[in-house]
Amino acid sequence: MSRTPTTIRWVGTTHGYIEIIDQRELPTKLVIRRLRTLAEAWDAIKTLAVRGAPAIGVTAGYAMVLAAHDWSDSIPPSRLLTQLAKAGAYLCASRPTAVNLAWAVERLLTVARQALAEGQRASALRVHLLTEAQAIFDEDVAMCAAIGRHGARFIRPHAGVLTHCNAGSLATSEKDGIGGTALAIIYEAQRRKVPFNVFADETRPLLQGARLTAWELQRAGVDVTVICDNMAGLVMRQGKVRLVIVGADRIAANGDTANKIGTYSVATLAAAHGVEFIVAAPSSTFDLTLADGEGIPIEERRAEEITSGFGPRTVPTGVRVYNPAFDVTPARLIKAIVTERGVISPVTKARIQAVLGRPGPTSQK
Amino acid sequence: MSRTPTTIRWVGTTHGYIEIIDQRELPTKLVIRRLRTLAEAWDAIKTLAVRGAPAIGVTAGYAMVLAAHDWSDSIPPSRLLTQLAKAGAYLCASRPTAVNLAWAVERLLTVARQALAEGQRASALRVHLLTEAQAIFDEDVAMCAAIGRHGARFIRPHAGVLTHCNAGSLATSEKDGIGGTALAIIYEAQRRKVPFNVFADETRPLLQGARLTAWELQRAGVDVTVICDNMAGLVMRQGKVRLVIVGADRIAANGDTANKIGTYSVATLAAAHGVEFIVAAPSSTFDLTLADGEGIPIEERRAEEITSGFGPRTVPTGVRVYNPAFDVTPARLIKAIVTERGVISPVTKARIQAVLGRPGPTSQK
Repeated sequence: MSRTPTTIRWVGTTHGYIEIIDQRELPTKLVIRRLRTLAEAWDAIKTLAVRGAPAIGVTAGYAMVLAAHDWSDSIPPSRLLTQLAKAGAYLCASRPTAVNLAWAVERLLTVARQALAEGQRASALRVHLLTEAQAIFDEDVAMCAAIGRHGARFIRPHAGVLTHCNAGSLATSEKDGIGGTALAIIYEAQRRKVPFNVFADETRPLLQGARLTAWELQRAGVDVTVICDNMAGLVMRQGKVRLVIVGADRIAANGDTANKIGTYSVATLAAAHGVEFIVAAPSSTFDLTLADGEGIPIEERRAEEITSGFGPRTVPTGVRVYNPAFDVTPARLIKAIVTERGVISPVTKARIQAVLGRPGPTSQK
Repeated sequence: MSRTPTTIRWVGTTHGYIEIIDQRELPTKLVIRRLRTLAEAWDAIKTLAVRGAPAIGVTAGYAMVLAAHDWSDSIPPSRLLTQLAKAGAYLCASRPTAVNLAWAVERLLTVARQALAEGQRASALRVHLLTEAQAIFDEDVAMCAAIGRHGARFIRPHAGVLTHCNAGSLATSEKDGIGGTALAIIYEAQRRKVPFNVFADETRPLLQGARLTAWELQRAGVDVTVICDNMAGLVMRQGKVRLVIVGADRIAANGDTANKIGTYSVATLAAAHGVEFIVAAPSSTFDLTLADGEGIPIEERRAEEITSGFGPRTVPTGVRVYNPAFDVTPARLIKAIVTERGVISPVTKARIQAVLGRPGPTSQK
């Protein structure tokens, strides 16, 4: 059966494989890569062939199934658990700071502990692992769809929408044309046949907006125009943009939001132009142990991303560069945070607690 | 005699040559190019080996001297004028929209007409031409130095300064370490031993900030850090920048200022952070026939500058891009405009007229 390639999916039964879009090759080539071993999955995560917190979590879940491929039913349960725990630790080392990775690995280990405690053998274990990995995928898809449904009303007919970086279906699971967080809202508005167009900031230094967001919006038939980051102010002033939607890396208890570098500049420009600025993110993005954004450290990345990110050197040798990976947008600049559990607006600590306290999407119906 | 390479200078007597820094090779290579013929000068302007309105004007002046290199004293004056006018028209075709180019050519032709009307021959004509071309250079250097002197007080000790694009000595004449417009202020503050540091926006799509501004500030020993354009908001929020200085392409009668794309975003961000935003430009940049910035058309440039500016393609084939060459910053966001005739602040029509009405720097003494 021929299918539209998606960010990530499992193909076949317990002895199947992971199929991913190799994002290192975008936008010039659409390369579908099959991951048949734990080592191949490890490599795909490590080298950013697959990226985005939710997509990494789903890949890790499936990778645990790959780890159990060759195990014989003659191996005693205690040794199976040791081996699986070892596989999980190995996977986690591919991107040590990826919270979803460790979280998915732990979910699979929990399922394995239970099955093995019941005396089940490798072949049965594989079924349990695949079922749990598939559940992570399904929950991720449901999360994206729910964000899309909750957020679609923010896109008004004939309004321009600006987005920054890639919070799209390339960063999450994807099904039936809906995926992503910020972009799930765009896909849902498109599905509802709202007429609108999108501006995608190219997003220096790594150009996820130009390379990934433009690619997936084009594929989905969304009217998309790429601009350089420094053009955002102009398109707002020209009235070409009425709404900004971005994703989030981490959200504090008061709504302060860490996201890709440049998000704060866009939010500030939006405020100056009376343009609505909203954040789309799963409830798992909130870190309620942080009172506000001041507690979020600004990670700096390699200078080479700026000095020679595209091959030829563009900054003189010996000149210092500053390369913060993200910035923090204060809650006061955010009109709403759209989660799978509903819309948080106004963005206050109380509203966040009220919405996050609701039952999750799986029990919503 | 060994000299520090400068943007542009004339070497030798009337049969000398132009020496330029080939800006196409920066920042990876410092290539000094000698222009010995009119055609070589034409090519240097056409291919942006030399760029920036003032520098183009100076090059054009010297190029007219090159045109007269081989002319014999036996040629009748009327034919000399015809040939020189032809050379001028040829030069102007290298960059038809460069106002300073046509202006410099016309100055040289005026001098030639006078000399030839007095019956002078080719050898004498060359002396007049070189003298006039040298005068254009000297006036340009004086303009830069005056802007530096008038503007230096805006740089306060231990304050961070942000600049966008390249309004530096690579865009003007340069002498004794002073050149440029926005950067002349930085060089003068450096000369006065004010302690400060500079952030240079890399300035997508053509990266003049990363390639040229960083190069010339490094060479001058100024503490410079390159950032991506989308990091400007963050460094302002962090208090790392207290002043923004940019150049200008064109300034309307009310002070609205057209400059490199992204300037408007920086000005808006500066206003939101209480950061001073000033413009440095020669009085020739004002177009008093324009009541305000609304009359300035936004030129769009080639999509390839965004889609594949670094070599490899970074935007999917078929995706639209928007590539405005500049934007207009409204006067209300500008704290001061620093010209060679003095500082315009507040930026109002009346103040502009008052300062521009003053005698020029050559008669100031």
